[in-house]
Amino acid sequence: MSELRHDPLSRRWVTIAMERSRRPGEFRFPQPVPSSDTEPCDFCSGQETRTPPELYAVRDRGGANSSNWVVRVIPNKQPVFAIEGSIDRRAIGLYDRMRGIGAHEIVIETPIHRVKPAEMPLLQLSAALTASRIRMSDLMRDNRFKYVLLFKNYGETAGATIHHPNQQIVATPVTPLLVSTQLSAARSYFQLKERCLFCDVIDQELDRGTRIVHVDDDFVSFAPYASRFPYEIHLYPRQHTHQFATLSDANTEKLSAHLLTVFRRLDIVLGDAPLNWMLVNGPNTNVDVRRAGFWATLEHDFHWHIEILPRLTPMAGFEWGTGLFINPTPPEDAAAFLRDAL
Amino acid sequence: MSELRHDPLSRRWVTIAMERSRRPGEFRFPQPVPSSDTEPCDFCSGQETRTPPELYAVRDRGGANSSNWVVRVIPNKQPVFAIEGSIDRRAIGLYDRMRGIGAHEIVIETPIHRVKPAEMPLLQLSAALTASRIRMSDLMRDNRFKYVLLFKNYGETAGATIHHPNQQIVATPVTPLLVSTQLSAARSYFQLKERCLFCDVIDQELDRGTRIVHVDDDFVSFAPYASRFPYEIHLYPRQHTHQFATLSDANTEKLSAHLLTVFRRLDIVLGDAPLNWMLVNGPNTNVDVRRAGFWATLEHDFHWHIEILPRLTPMAGFEWGTGLFINPTPPEDAAAFLRDAL
Repeated sequence: MSELRHDPLSRRWVTIAMERSRRPGEFRFPQPVPSSDTEPCDFCSGQETRTPPELYAVRDRGGANSSNWVVRVIPNKQPVFAIEGSIDRRAIGLYDRMRGIGAHEIVIETPIHRVKPAEMPLLQLSAALTASRIRMSDLMRDNRFKYVLLFKNYGETAGATIHHPNQQIVATPVTPLLVSTQLSAARSYFQLKERCLFCDVIDQELDRGTRIVHVDDDFVSFAPYASRFPYEIHLYPRQHTHQFATLSDANTEKLSAHLLTVFRRLDIVLGDAPLNWMLVNGPNTNVDVRRAGFWATLEHDFHWHIEILPRLTPMAGFEWGTGLFINPTPPEDAAAFLRDAL
Repeated sequence: MSELRHDPLSRRWVTIAMERSRRPGEFRFPQPVPSSDTEPCDFCSGQETRTPPELYAVRDRGGANSSNWVVRVIPNKQPVFAIEGSIDRRAIGLYDRMRGIGAHEIVIETPIHRVKPAEMPLLQLSAALTASRIRMSDLMRDNRFKYVLLFKNYGETAGATIHHPNQQIVATPVTPLLVSTQLSAARSYFQLKERCLFCDVIDQELDRGTRIVHVDDDFVSFAPYASRFPYEIHLYPRQHTHQFATLSDANTEKLSAHLLTVFRRLDIVLGDAPLNWMLVNGPNTNVDVRRAGFWATLEHDFHWHIEILPRLTPMAGFEWGTGLFINPTPPEDAAAFLRDAL
């Protein structure tokens, strides 16, 4: 017998196959970075002239676009969104369109070509996340951008086209559907209870314990009650805060240490698996309130977090047609494997 | 410059890369059915004892579960949902759950092990779609099921685990999120205009013409204005109707002929590509109105249709984090290639 579980944040039902739980070794996936991959690539140290000029970098010595950098942020060479111009909203008969105004930046996490997430040195990941935080804060000053997303694709199955370790930042002129669904659920809950839905979920998970993967004084990671995917993990700051951009340097280092522990646990249990992680942030509060409408001031009711999705199972017609995911590994089993790993 | 386009049905923004349109030959995908695949499998003619007893079949002679069938419907051996039992809704603290009650059936489309969608004989596909229609009508008599979905996975990239041509029917005790979003958009539009949103979309597409892929007296296929994927195609009955189950036998054959033409066009343009198709149906109107609530009576405002998704590009962190898909082929280009194919 399977179980249908409802996720209060995404308002999504998920089917959890309770009886035929798939063990970690039962998943087959391609190697994230093929062994045929050659270096140096455009993102390697010494190849700085092969990329657009950098937007931000951390380096001990030398000028902009020289080598010896620790972390480097560049605009995407083939950006999905253009940074210059007005949004120009129009009706096309029944439809709506606007110009693709936004930003698309690449945070090169390390000068080294091949590093899997579990083996990134702590100070390196911390420098990369700090650089991402600084760039996101900067992009949020632009009130054309309603939302700024940070994410990483690891492995071709996860949509990575460049193998050199990188994070991506995208600023969009619309509040994306998946985000507005979470914002809407969080706001309804806050209006009812005057408490943050995410904070209540964290309390309940810590109290119950069976889905906790890793916890320290500042952050908690757990397999969500209604996980869409096997070994899906959500990471939350334990202190209520709606904006990742407001995190201190010290807490960014603590976040990096926590994230690394989670990646190590995943690597031990699943091996070197393809994955995506996305930082789900509050909306840009610098946007003009009249334009942002409903999403203008959400400091109390939204809670930023990171969603980690190992890419072990393909999407099939059932999921595309319904959004009702089938997860063959109960999150309680996944969390137990991951807790026992270290 | 890319363009953001809004889909009025799914309420989703999509980014269409207008300048660097990817041509058909630029997509790489694995062969849907590997050449190493061996027959006979459990679904082949003569192997009837290797499946659960059939629920429905079309055959010229012989008794139930004998060979010589044209189309055969069986319960899934490892069903996601169990058919027997009560739904038993409960709160688990903040969360909601119910038992996985539902149905999961396999429609074996042909006795022949290897037939690609573009090469299915018309009468064979028509018999399969008729069988699916009959089984869906039967499942809708059960008022525990709020929704009945029909879909096909073709190729491992599209989530197919069995290569023998088959369709799947799943009945669920909840209205899936993607369906309720469309239902909600359609109802709001009907309340405003007293017209079906889907009918208006069809009229606008036929009037404009640039996104039309194939049209005949009864059905129309087009590349949606806000296509998520390259070569995504939506097929609609031109006559307003909310339930696929009410289609006549004659119209099922016309639908099959239309669908085959679309598959042939896709095959000529893209080659033998993995794909999913899903039939998005109205909700089950046999469900008790008090339990179905908002979704009880939608005969005027919903319009069933088929969504065809060639699986050419992987989902990456940006899509998982936002639901804001990036489509590298403008639907106008895709439709022109597909129109010119035959």
